[in-house]
Order: sequence, then structure tokens, then C-alpha cells
Amino acid sequence: MNPIYLDYNATTPVDPLVVSELLPWLREGFGNPSSNHPYGQRAKQAVEAARVQLAHVLGCSPSEIIFTSGGTEANNQALIGAALANSGRGMHIITSAVEHPAVLKPLQWLERQGFTITILPVDGSGRVELDALHRAITDETILVSIMHANNEVGTVQPLAEISAVARERGILFHTDAAQSLGKIPVQVDNLGVDLLTVAGHKLYAPKGVGALYVRSGVNIHSYLHGAGHEGGRRAGTENVPYIVALGKAAELADERLTTEGVRVRKLRDYFHARLNGLLSGVILNGHLTERLPNTLNISFNGITGSELLERSPEIAASTGSACHDGSGELSGVLKAMGLSRAQGFGAVRFSLGRQTTHEELDQAAEVISERVHQLRASGVNQ
Amino acid sequence: MNPIYLDYNATTPVDPLVVSELLPWLREGFGNPSSNHPYGQRAKQAVEAARVQLAHVLGCSPSEIIFTSGGTEANNQALIGAALANSGRGMHIITSAVEHPAVLKPLQWLERQGFTITILPVDGSGRVELDALHRAITDETILVSIMHANNEVGTVQPLAEISAVARERGILFHTDAAQSLGKIPVQVDNLGVDLLTVAGHKLYAPKGVGALYVRSGVNIHSYLHGAGHEGGRRAGTENVPYIVALGKAAELADERLTTEGVRVRKLRDYFHARLNGLLSGVILNGHLTERLPNTLNISFNGITGSELLERSPEIAASTGSACHDGSGELSGVLKAMGLSRAQGFGAVRFSLGRQTTHEELDQAAEVISERVHQLRASGVNQ
Repeated sequence: MNPIYLDYNATTPVDPLVVSELLPWLREGFGNPSSNHPYGQRAKQAVEAARVQLAHVLGCSPSEIIFTSGGTEANNQALIGAALANSGRGMHIITSAVEHPAVLKPLQWLERQGFTITILPVDGSGRVELDALHRAITDETILVSIMHANNEVGTVQPLAEISAVARERGILFHTDAAQSLGKIPVQVDNLGVDLLTVAGHKLYAPKGVGALYVRSGVNIHSYLHGAGHEGGRRAGTENVPYIVALGKAAELADERLTTEGVRVRKLRDYFHARLNGLLSGVILNGHLTERLPNTLNISFNGITGSELLERSPEIAASTGSACHDGSGELSGVLKAMGLSRAQGFGAVRFSLGRQTTHEELDQAAEVISERVHQLRASGVNQ
Repeated sequence: MNPIYLDYNATTPVDPLVVSELLPWLREGFGNPSSNHPYGQRAKQAVEAARVQLAHVLGCSPSEIIFTSGGTEANNQALIGAALANSGRGMHIITSAVEHPAVLKPLQWLERQGFTITILPVDGSGRVELDALHRAITDETILVSIMHANNEVGTVQPLAEISAVARERGILFHTDAAQSLGKIPVQVDNLGVDLLTVAGHKLYAPKGVGALYVRSGVNIHSYLHGAGHEGGRRAGTENVPYIVALGKAAELADERLTTEGVRVRKLRDYFHARLNGLLSGVILNGHLTERLPNTLNISFNGITGSELLERSPEIAASTGSACHDGSGELSGVLKAMGLSRAQGFGAVRFSLGRQTTHEELDQAAEVISERVHQLRASGVNQ
């Protein structure tokens, strides 16, 4: 039997409706969108239809969407592309201590090219403080990149307020919305962003597709150099099936946003309450209310999260972000939030999704509480 | 009715066996390979199995394969990654005039960063001359990039001889094998390459996946920065379904290489002979023998290729590379081969593949000859 999947922030299954939508483009609709004949032109139309779907969800114009191979590529293009295109105006960039490596690493690369990077601290819930941003901005600042919602603890940033601070100074604002799109409203004008990263596989589309929103008039360099795809902004033959999938997935997520958000939040809070009822010493990491509705990151007093999950093969969850599993170092996010090592290593991320059921959570709560009791009794992790 | 597809160099349909192989990884096998639980570990094993398949075909070690989002990304990483990692030894790079934009554009980017690029001329058949390479090499040369087979005319470079010249001087050698893999033998040691680009969608795998071979010990920088995927060499959550597809597609192509090569070459030569029988003034572009078995690039005296294809909706073929269609400029490849503008604009690329039949080619030859006769009679293109 498969473990109960509570790791939707690591990746989501592809929605069956999304699979149905993409399949014809793997089969008969295989043309290269750059070809002038009907095989190519049909594929091109499919790409453009997906662009309209995604733009509609984000509240932007289709021409402001660049399809990429995923969130990582979108972040690389946004950050390096914006920095290199605007370095004449200054070489200072601001980000936060809780960003994903797909933001932090491109910024480290820019640092090696001579840019200065300021990393803003966060409070105990993982939120960036506006004051810190105000203080960090200089006349040299050209770009601020702050994620919308955190992958590990689910904390949602007050993005509209943060972006307003940057944009009133004429500074470009980028957000990595990999974790938020499909879970909470993501509209580029409400968030006040110039650049926004989308990752398909967090959204019930496949791994290997994403998008970058680039506000009309914002100048960034392309990152993958080659032929003139995506209006000359991203080279590489279009992944037609996955682009179609991303368009459909965005549309589905948008249609279900409210109902599914309410459903998942209820389940998540039920699960949290269940654990609290069964166990003492259950500590929530992240913000109590300003948090993705599907995410529950908790530490169990006296327990190591990885040990707990190892002893709970009935459950698929994660310690820290999936990308860093097995690293042995305390997650940078939890560290930045000021967690003690004990609490940090005690953290387990449960992230729920479309297929999560009440019954699964009952079972999961039983398993977790049983194993926590066992571990505490054995003293292994004390 | 669909047009007869004779544009396999632009892109190939995904082989039905490849679709079957990838589908489970879109559905139940959706885990993130970075996750420690069984969902993740199964996905990781699938990625590693595909790596073994592709490595076996290329004659290299699995650890020398980096999966990418396609040929363009692989070329960007190979060229920019190798140049930046080795700039301490020199800043001169050599390439050829018939490369794909996915090679030429990253090199132009490097030129803007201070590298010097020498573009070698080719002969009338599209082959690089060894003498020119000898003369171009300086003490500053760190990298030579010459494609294996040309996308437009199919000319195959004498790669082993070319790479030997570079490598005996300790210069890294890269080849873009996007068009050759699956059509002719591609073994890294026989070709003598340090870096080799693979593009899935030319090989009956989907668009949006590729690979870069990096010889063990060769130092290149990563290009997509982020979390530690692909052994820290390429960030971005692995596109598991397409990686599985690429492994399978490489295996299939390898199994069928000889029989399919013979079959397609016979069909191609039959088609060529048919056109020659039906029409006068049919000129072959590219090398008569050192050419991909599936590729026939021909000019029709007094005719514009794009006009001919417009008037032949029964056939899906291409003028120049698919990526440049509609540009109105003479293809750089044909120009470099010294074709006159008339001959160059007269060129049509017919590229055959796994599903091409004798009957299709009979029909195509009839259509083409009829339209050429009509166009010549009307004097439109004279």
C-alpha cells in the first residue's frame, strides 16, 4: 500500500484533467510551433491558448507571459535577466533570508559578478519586516525579490505592502509564486509585482514547466540564448504538451481556488487539532493565520523530524524543503525564523492537497502520535 | 486529411512506445526525486535508469550525463559553462558558420563578455576544413564547438578528425548532436568529444527534454542555479516523465539505428531520384554521401522554396531550419556554403522519419513536380 501523501508542497500529482488535455499534444499534435505548416501552426495555437489561460488567472496580458522549463529557470531569468539589463542604474539587490535556493543561488552568482546582495531578516513567523526593507534600500538598489509564500512553513508575505515600498522608489519587484499560485489568490496587479515566477508541478501540472510574468515595459535579458522562441525572450523549442498542461492546470486551480482552499484549510486545521489532542509539545512553525491553507509545519518536543518520518513509513511528508532532504544541516528557513536547533530539527512539514481526505488525516494522526509516544518513551531523541 | 509529414528534422512525433513508458510517471509516479519517501525514491530510480540507458547509447558513464530542458539549454550550459569555468586559461573560442542559433547565440553572449569568437568557414557541401581549424587555434583557445550533423542540409562533419586537432592541443571540444543522435552512430569516444548536446524531440522523445554529456574531469559551471539537482550541476526539479522518455527513446533509436538508417536512406534516395526523373534543374544542397540518411535539401531552378511549399499544402516540409521560417533572410547555413541567393531561396528541406512510407513519397514527388511545373510555367518565380 502506498504511504499517505502529505507532501504536496514538494510536488503535486498531475490532475487527471490536465493529463487528458496534454496527451493529444504528445501524440498527433506533435508539430514544432516554429513550423509554418499545419502541424506547426496547430501546436503554436495551443501554446498561445495556454498563454491566454495563464494570463487570465494572473490578471495580466498574454504577451507578459514567458513559458520556461520550471520555477528554477524562471527565477534565474528574472533575477539574472533583470540584474544584467539594469546594472547601469545600480548594482544592489535585496532579498529575504527565507527564499528558495532557486532565488538565493542566482543571487549568489550575481554577487560573484560584482552585485551587492542584502538579505533581509524575518520575524519568528517568517515574515519580512517592512522597516528592514526601508532601511536596506539605497540609490543603487535596482531589484527586490521576496517570495509570495514559503515552501517550508507556508508563511504568506504581505506582498502588496512590500512591493509598494520598492516600486514607489522605481525599483523592480520580483516574487517567486511557486508555492502560492493555486493555493491563494495571485494577481499581479494586486500583488504589485513586475516579475513573478510560476512552477507547474506545484499546481497539478507536470514537473518541467513553468512561466515568468514580465510586466510590459520591464526590461530583462533573455537567459537561454538561441533561436527566437517566446518572442525572442526564451530560446528552446516549446514544450507544447506541458505548456498546454500548465494553462489547463492554472485554469482548474483558479476555478477551484475558493472551495478547495476552504476544504483544505479545514482539513489541515482538523489534523493540527487532532495532533494537539493526541500529543503534548506540538509547536507550530510559521504564521498562525497568514499561511498557505494546505501547510502545517510542526515540531514535536524532544523528537527529531527525520527520525519520526523514518519510523512512520505509512506517511509521506518532509522535513524542511524536499530539495534539501538528507543534507543534515538545519533548514535555512527555520534558522532565519530563529528556531533553536532542537525545534528546527524537530520540524515536520505536512502539506495537503486535492486528494487529501479526512480518513487519511485520521490515520496519519494516529500513526504520528503513536510513533512520537514511542520515540519519547525510548528516549532516542531526548 | 493531414499533410504528408516530411519535416522530421524540425521535430519528431513521440514514439508510441515512448508515450507508454512516460505515462505512468505523469500519473501515479508523480513523486519529487528529491523526496526521501517512496514516491520520491521511485521517481529518482526512474531518472537514474534513464541515465543508464542514455549513457549506454552514447558509450559513456551515467555520471557524465546531465539532463536538461532541451538542446538549447544543453548548448547554453556547455558553451557558457565551459567558457566561464576555463577563462583563466584563455578567452578564445572557435565554432563554425553552419551552427544552430542555440550555439551561435550563447557564443555571441560570451563575445559581449569579452571572449573572442572565431567562426570557421565551410566548403560548398557544408563541411569545416581542417586547415582552417589549424590556422584558427591560438594559445588562448579554450573551446571548439562544431556540430555533428547540420539541421538544414544534413551534412555530417568529420568530427573525429576535427576533435583530434583540438584535443591534442588540450582544447575542450563540444558538439551539438541534436540532429545526429538516432540517425547515425553517436559515441562520445569515437567522436572524441568532451561535451555533447542531446535534444529529445529530434529523437522521438517529447519537446522539452535534452541532455548534456560532460566528460569526467571536464570542468564546467552550472547554468541554472538553485537547489542541488543533477549532482549540483543543474538545478530544477527533474522532469521525470520526459527523462524516462528520453532514456527509452535513445534505447529505441539505438536498437533500430542500422535497419532504420538503411530503410530511410533508401526512401530518401528513391524520392530524390523520383524528383530528378520528373523535373529538370533539381540541385542537391549539402554533401552527397556524408549526410544524414533522412535529409534531402534541394533547390529547384527558378523557384522560391517558400512559394513552392505554400502552393503544396499536401506536404509539410520546410525552407531552412524550422526555427527561422518566415524571417525573409537567406539561411545562414546556405549562405555559408556559398549558395547564390537564387539557389538559397529555392531550397526546400525534406526530412524523413520512422513513419515515412514509399507511398507518401510517391505522392509528394507528384505534388512537388506538378507545382514546380506550374510555377515555372506561370513565371511567378522567374
